[in-house]
Amino acid sequence: MAKILITSGPTRQYLDPVRYLSNASSGRMGAALAQAAIDLGHEVTIVSGPVSIEYPSRATVIPVVSTDEMLHSAMQAFRDCDGAIGAAAPCDYMPRFVNDQKIAKTGDPLTLQLIETPDVVATLGQNKTASQWVVGFALESEDRRFRATVKLEKKHCDLIVSNGPTAIDSDENEVELIGRSGDVLMKIHADKQSVADRILQVIQERLIP
Amino acid sequence: MAKILITSGPTRQYLDPVRYLSNASSGRMGAALAQAAIDLGHEVTIVSGPVSIEYPSRATVIPVVSTDEMLHSAMQAFRDCDGAIGAAAPCDYMPRFVNDQKIAKTGDPLTLQLIETPDVVATLGQNKTASQWVVGFALESEDRRFRATVKLEKKHCDLIVSNGPTAIDSDENEVELIGRSGDVLMKIHADKQSVADRILQVIQERLIP
Repeated sequence: MAKILITSGPTRQYLDPVRYLSNASSGRMGAALAQAAIDLGHEVTIVSGPVSIEYPSRATVIPVVSTDEMLHSAMQAFRDCDGAIGAAAPCDYMPRFVNDQKIAKTGDPLTLQLIETPDVVATLGQNKTASQWVVGFALESEDRRFRATVKLEKKHCDLIVSNGPTAIDSDENEVELIGRSGDVLMKIHADKQSVADRILQVIQERLIP
Repeated sequence: MAKILITSGPTRQYLDPVRYLSNASSGRMGAALAQAAIDLGHEVTIVSGPVSIEYPSRATVIPVVSTDEMLHSAMQAFRDCDGAIGAAAPCDYMPRFVNDQKIAKTGDPLTLQLIETPDVVATLGQNKTASQWVVGFALESEDRRFRATVKLEKKHCDLIVSNGPTAIDSDENEVELIGRSGDVLMKIHADKQSVADRILQVIQERLIP
C-alpha cells in the first residue's frame, strides 16, 4: 500500500473580484486516477482546483483556487506521501497586478501584464526524496513527444503522461506514457478510467516497491 | 403568456487552445429566473455559457461558449420573444490576438492586449421593438446603485437588477431592482429562487401586458 498525492482540476488566477484566467480542466482524469489507485489498495489525497465532478468518497480532497494555494497544499501533503501524480492543469500565468475592485470598462483596450505562476509538479520533483516518485502530465498542442520529454527532465519526473488539448473536459484521452530514458512505455486511446487504470499499472510495476 | 429569453452563465474568451478568460458565474440565477417564469406560465429560452447546473427541463437551452456566440444566439432568439432578462455574466474582454497553438512558457512575462467584447444586453436593448422589454443585471463591487442606474440608461433597459460580486457562484443573492426613473422598486436578500420569484413578479406587473 502506498500513499499517493494527486493534483487535479484547473486553478484560477483572478484579475479582479470577478474576472479570472483559467482552463477547462474538469478533474475527470484526476478522479479516474484516484479511483484506479484506490482499486489497487492505495491511499489517495487529492489537491483539487474548482471542479463540478465528484471524487471517489474514499479519497481525501483538499480544495484550492489559485496555483499558489495548490502548490502550498500539495507540498504539505507530499511530505506524508510516497509519490505524486500531477494531473491538474494549474493556471500557469497570473496578472502581475490584481485589482481589489472590479475593473470598470472604459471602451479602451486593456493591457494585462502576466507573469508565470510557480510550477507545482516541478517543485514536487525538485523536493522529492530518494524514495519518492513524481509522475507529471504534459499537455501540448504540437511537438508533443519532444516537449513532454523535455518537461520530464526539467521537472524531475519519473514518468510523464503526454496528451493533447482534446483531453480537456472530455470523457476520453489519448496518451503516451514516457519513461526516464525518453522511451514510450505505453500508448493508449480510451475512456479516462481505462487510461487511468493502465497508468496506475505502470506506476505499480515501476515505482511502487 | 409571454415568450422570455434569458441569458445565463459565464462565457469564455480563449487566449489559445487551453487558456481562457472567464468568471465564476454558475448559471444558478438564470436557472431560478427560468423556473420562476415557467411557474407563471411563460415560455422560456435560455442562451447559456458553459455551466454544470441543470436548467428546468421545460426551458429550451441554447449552449454557447464565447460572448460573440452568446450575442448571436440571443439576438436570433430575441426576435421571437416578448422580452429578455440578461442574467449571464458574459466575459467582457477578449484577447486582441488568439493563438492557434498553446502559448509556450519562456520564463518571461507575457503581455496580453485585451479589447472589449460586444455588450449582449446593450445590443438587445438597442434593437428591441416598442413592445419588447429588456431587464439587465449589473454586477459592481462599488458605487452599486449609481453604476447600475448608468447601465440601465446606457443599455436601454426597462429594469436593472443590481448585485455584488458575492452573488457569483453563491446560493444566495442580495439585489436591488431599479426602474427607469432610477427608483429602487424592490430590495431583497434571499436564496436565488426567492429573489428570482420576486423579480418575475415585478416583471409581470410592469412589463407583461
